[in-house]
Amino acid sequence: MNTTTEDTDDRARRSIGARRNPASQEAILDAAEAVLEESGIGGFSIEAVARRARAGKPTIYRWWPNRTLLMLDVYRRFKNARGFPDTGSVRGDLIALLQNHLLGFWKDSLCGTVYRAIIVEAQNDPDAAKALYAYQEERKKATEVIIERAKARGEVAKDVDGRLIIDMVVSFAWHQLLINRLDEAMGSIEGVVDGVLMGCAGYKR
Amino acid sequence: MNTTTEDTDDRARRSIGARRNPASQEAILDAAEAVLEESGIGGFSIEAVARRARAGKPTIYRWWPNRTLLMLDVYRRFKNARGFPDTGSVRGDLIALLQNHLLGFWKDSLCGTVYRAIIVEAQNDPDAAKALYAYQEERKKATEVIIERAKARGEVAKDVDGRLIIDMVVSFAWHQLLINRLDEAMGSIEGVVDGVLMGCAGYKR
Repeated sequence: MNTTTEDTDDRARRSIGARRNPASQEAILDAAEAVLEESGIGGFSIEAVARRARAGKPTIYRWWPNRTLLMLDVYRRFKNARGFPDTGSVRGDLIALLQNHLLGFWKDSLCGTVYRAIIVEAQNDPDAAKALYAYQEERKKATEVIIERAKARGEVAKDVDGRLIIDMVVSFAWHQLLINRLDEAMGSIEGVVDGVLMGCAGYKR
Repeated sequence: MNTTTEDTDDRARRSIGARRNPASQEAILDAAEAVLEESGIGGFSIEAVARRARAGKPTIYRWWPNRTLLMLDVYRRFKNARGFPDTGSVRGDLIALLQNHLLGFWKDSLCGTVYRAIIVEAQNDPDAAKALYAYQEERKKATEVIIERAKARGEVAKDVDGRLIIDMVVSFAWHQLLINRLDEAMGSIEGVVDGVLMGCAGYKR
């Protein structure tokens, strides 16, 4: 696009047009978030978001082909606002990951319900699945830095498979979300992290 | 009931009645399995099973209030037929659990698709959720014997939390099922099991 940033911002303020630009995208996401907060998953539709954002439905559909993809972007924005844990130790980071970014994050906000709904949709809708897998890949890659930092600090061996560690922690959280045991799981966080880091006490092969 | 077993079996052979008894229950499950195999999840309904079993729909509904509960019993029967791994070592048992009872079991049969559908239904239907949680509880409890045997053999310390170990292994499998990575996950089985047993190589707290 040949417009300057100022031009783009100015146009977005006047109306939410057909072009996906940061300002209008945020306005749609704001509206989507408000609809989710007020009406829950059941009342969440592209139509309701369009009404709230005073945007045309076709505009929203052009950017988010279905409501699940829009929900995922709302979820992603919440998640990104939390950043990534950096406590100075791998144990602290993994505990913070489960406490503030996975189990606790889902438990204490609408985000748990939203993420559950996204996972469900991904089982039936190939577009939702593709978007969820891409999001998972992006998050896991970013979270692997926890293990990279642990290697740099000499807390774990250089050849530890960081992706597998993150996958195990994320898997535990997903499972608890989907069997509705977030509350109980909060009490198992240290056990899981110590399990991943230290294995079974007294294990002799 | 005052009827003898022979009476019951005989009546079940003549018609599938309103009473839930082992013989007629198996006949319904046989029919449900056949419908799943022939028509897949999409074609699976209480109506189709009733037609196949030559039973009345109300009879089936009396025993299985919805199609998800019926699917879960079909799934459970497949799963129970596999028994539980007992290879002589905790490492061997956990590898066999992932290979033959979770990831591999789902990958190589209709059971993966069926279980996915059950998990999805459980997110929206409280009856399905209750049945799935009860099934999970029953399976995890039975699977914990792997860790009990390991303790008895002196492979792990007596105070190891067996439920947590099983939960971590099952969680990993669920996650891979739901992000459609069963094939790739088959290659991570030893890594996951060694992770759970031995933790991160070189970990220094």
